[in-house]
Amino acid sequence: MNSYEALCSRLSAVDDLQKAAALLEWDRETHMPIGGVAARARQLATLRTLAHERFTDDRIGALLEAAAGAVPDACGEDLLDVVRRDYVRARRVPKRLVHDLTMAVGHAEAAWRRARTANDFAVFAGHLERIIALNIEKAEALGYDECRYDALLEEYEPGMRTAAVRALFSSLQAELIPMVREIAQCEPPDAAFLHQPYDVDGQWAFGMEVLQAIGYDFMRGRQDTSVHPFSTAFSIDDVRITTRLDPHNVTSGIFSSLHEAGHALYEQGLDPALENTPLADGTSLGMHESQSRLWENQIGRSRPFWEHFYARLQAHFPSQLSSVSLDAFYRAVNRVEPSCIRVEADEVTYNLHILLRFELEEQLIAEQIGARDLPTAWNEQMQAFLGVCPSNDVEGVLQDIHWAMGAIGYFPTYTLGNLMSAQIFTCAQAALPDLNRSAARGDFTDLLAWLRTHFHQYGRRRSAAALMAQFTGEVLSAAPWLAYVRNKYGVLYPIQH
Amino acid sequence: MNSYEALCSRLSAVDDLQKAAALLEWDRETHMPIGGVAARARQLATLRTLAHERFTDDRIGALLEAAAGAVPDACGEDLLDVVRRDYVRARRVPKRLVHDLTMAVGHAEAAWRRARTANDFAVFAGHLERIIALNIEKAEALGYDECRYDALLEEYEPGMRTAAVRALFSSLQAELIPMVREIAQCEPPDAAFLHQPYDVDGQWAFGMEVLQAIGYDFMRGRQDTSVHPFSTAFSIDDVRITTRLDPHNVTSGIFSSLHEAGHALYEQGLDPALENTPLADGTSLGMHESQSRLWENQIGRSRPFWEHFYARLQAHFPSQLSSVSLDAFYRAVNRVEPSCIRVEADEVTYNLHILLRFELEEQLIAEQIGARDLPTAWNEQMQAFLGVCPSNDVEGVLQDIHWAMGAIGYFPTYTLGNLMSAQIFTCAQAALPDLNRSAARGDFTDLLAWLRTHFHQYGRRRSAAALMAQFTGEVLSAAPWLAYVRNKYGVLYPIQH
Repeated sequence: MNSYEALCSRLSAVDDLQKAAALLEWDRETHMPIGGVAARARQLATLRTLAHERFTDDRIGALLEAAAGAVPDACGEDLLDVVRRDYVRARRVPKRLVHDLTMAVGHAEAAWRRARTANDFAVFAGHLERIIALNIEKAEALGYDECRYDALLEEYEPGMRTAAVRALFSSLQAELIPMVREIAQCEPPDAAFLHQPYDVDGQWAFGMEVLQAIGYDFMRGRQDTSVHPFSTAFSIDDVRITTRLDPHNVTSGIFSSLHEAGHALYEQGLDPALENTPLADGTSLGMHESQSRLWENQIGRSRPFWEHFYARLQAHFPSQLSSVSLDAFYRAVNRVEPSCIRVEADEVTYNLHILLRFELEEQLIAEQIGARDLPTAWNEQMQAFLGVCPSNDVEGVLQDIHWAMGAIGYFPTYTLGNLMSAQIFTCAQAALPDLNRSAARGDFTDLLAWLRTHFHQYGRRRSAAALMAQFTGEVLSAAPWLAYVRNKYGVLYPIQH
Repeated sequence: MNSYEALCSRLSAVDDLQKAAALLEWDRETHMPIGGVAARARQLATLRTLAHERFTDDRIGALLEAAAGAVPDACGEDLLDVVRRDYVRARRVPKRLVHDLTMAVGHAEAAWRRARTANDFAVFAGHLERIIALNIEKAEALGYDECRYDALLEEYEPGMRTAAVRALFSSLQAELIPMVREIAQCEPPDAAFLHQPYDVDGQWAFGMEVLQAIGYDFMRGRQDTSVHPFSTAFSIDDVRITTRLDPHNVTSGIFSSLHEAGHALYEQGLDPALENTPLADGTSLGMHESQSRLWENQIGRSRPFWEHFYARLQAHFPSQLSSVSLDAFYRAVNRVEPSCIRVEADEVTYNLHILLRFELEEQLIAEQIGARDLPTAWNEQMQAFLGVCPSNDVEGVLQDIHWAMGAIGYFPTYTLGNLMSAQIFTCAQAALPDLNRSAARGDFTDLLAWLRTHFHQYGRRRSAAALMAQFTGEVLSAAPWLAYVRNKYGVLYPIQH
């Protein structure tokens, strides 16, 4: 074994530990009996700690240096680049800080749940202060050129900078706020028929048909149910998704399946040569989200999609839907309505929820505001962005688990993903003139093949920015998403924008 | 942390790795998509190797010595005893031999499958020779006092010796062979009605009722289906079972559920203080099997059991069973018939299958016969023991996977378990005069409590021999099992024995 092979062998064991941990998490969310909770937490901590120890070991550093002379191919060069970056970052965070963050998150998550039950932000505030302080410490340990928030953003969206996010979000905000205001004044389409009783077995069966049709490979994956839908990969050939079925909402399960399958198609589409290496992952959370949103929104909320699938859905639920026209159904699943809860937001208002969180995170990390200022700041911003105000903090600042989990810098990737999805989809439409007609036949083969060729296969070999530049011909901008929304919603609502 | 605590902390991580591996195996057998095979094999090898490395590390040895002065209680003393024994054994087998055995097993399993497909023992013979040679080498490395086979048996049945097994099996054989011969000459009861089409959903529902009734705790376990039923534990509070449902056999699934639940009740019944230590396991495979067989046979194939459950089974399958009397059903599930396949054998003939395997294993390890002598020896012995002869090697020497998996010394534990189950159950009946009446009401609370108090809770703190002596008042013997069989089958068949 030369030093490159020795490095790969060590990285392979680290990957095996991480993937085993992922399976333990998947099982916890899908099948584990309640009694398993305590042992599972301990087992996960052991696997994650061991993986971290083995990855940050001095010998990895030594092998990284030695391997530079033994790289077999271009893929190997990319691997060294990525591992070097990960290694340097992982070693910059002192063990003591990793431990403190883990402990703080453990307490903060529990406090967040208690705060929600009691509808009392004060229960959570001290914990959030601690999380923010530790994130600031982490950012300082990691280092940055321009601004502290950059160091945190890098964790989720490598290569992206706060200034660039700010610029993108400003251009978005300038158009989006008046557009949402205008739509909010229109008469909303009827959507009551979506919320009748719908048998979950029928929903499951329909969802499985859709997943087959879009090309999710059940030989290399499976779907289960869980309280919070997610996708997870144990190898390129075992990428699983979960969904949640609501017996009083016929579309929430299907959009959740499409969203998670979008993530999973990305991972199923990685170059098999990347298996068991650090390259076998999405290149950034934004790019990952672009794939989930593309299948959920650009495809799943499009008219061509329902031209094919609506008759099938009606066949599953004749008593609920036989008298509802395709047009009425299409309008209902694209109903826009400013509301307080991010995860229930429609395609148009969703990004404003993210813009708000990004602004607050920036200010928190820059120490311009403190955790205890959040409820007021949150509610004022909601009023300014969406014209609504949470009636309590559970509907406001306490709604997301991300901060309690210690994740600051994560939220912007949702909107970056939305912007990427529109920019990518616009290119796909140009490259595949038959895309709409194929979709209306329930055939997504060409789209998936195009996404695989231009995006999926690369894994972490190319940054999100490099992929966007190379395959869309442009740097990331808000323009394609705004154009997509204007075109689509200009038809659905009598608006000027 | 004193040295005892430091030792426990290291053992805890080893246990976490082994339990994570067990979950990876459970998933592979129950839910994993076919694409996951390759990555899963690699991940399992990584976890098992890491656990082995960490357990056999020099520092464990040093801590074992140092910890002797820091033991907090009697349980700690038992822990040190068990770990010392495991550690010494694990260190005696050279790494090279562990590696060779792993490789040989990998090849042998594949060859065994090919040999079965081709019905050609020659395809497997060379691999089996290698497995035997490596097991001999392993026995020599482990060491023994009296005979080489002892060293292998110790792996599965700690404290048991070949001479003792031979004595037990001889007394069994002397009575059993004539008894089986006599039964084989009787008119067998009708069992054709068991083999009609039986909807698997109904079988599943009935099985779940039974599992609830015997006290399997679904808050700390779950049942799934798999090709080969098994039980597995990820902690004392997460012990799972699987079953296999045959749409043309109404009882195979239920007896399989009872068998696996018997194993699981043992592990759910361990003292919670043993959690995450090497003591949290069955004390031997024989003792484990005694619990599975007790619930499968002494309970599940008893008349009181069906006095309660038969009406419920009829309610699930009225068209198949409403005209079949309880008595006819009870006779059918206890039909005795000499046959070639161990896993399909009834309660009476089953042990003869094991006696045959034990004899052949002894001769193989003593180098009195070689792998290539097996087909002839097997068939002659089958004729002598059961009066039947396999029509080919798939029904003969190729039927079990154990040898291909490298396990020699494992088979006798099945019969040891059967003998223990009868000896234990006889004591339970004496201690619980209401046992039959409770069973006939579907109430097994007292039996389970008695088993927990006298056997389950101890885990590996007591050897099987110590538990038998302490709680049955006798050393293990074949007499209780023979008496049980004579009593039960003397009623069902017109036999003298």
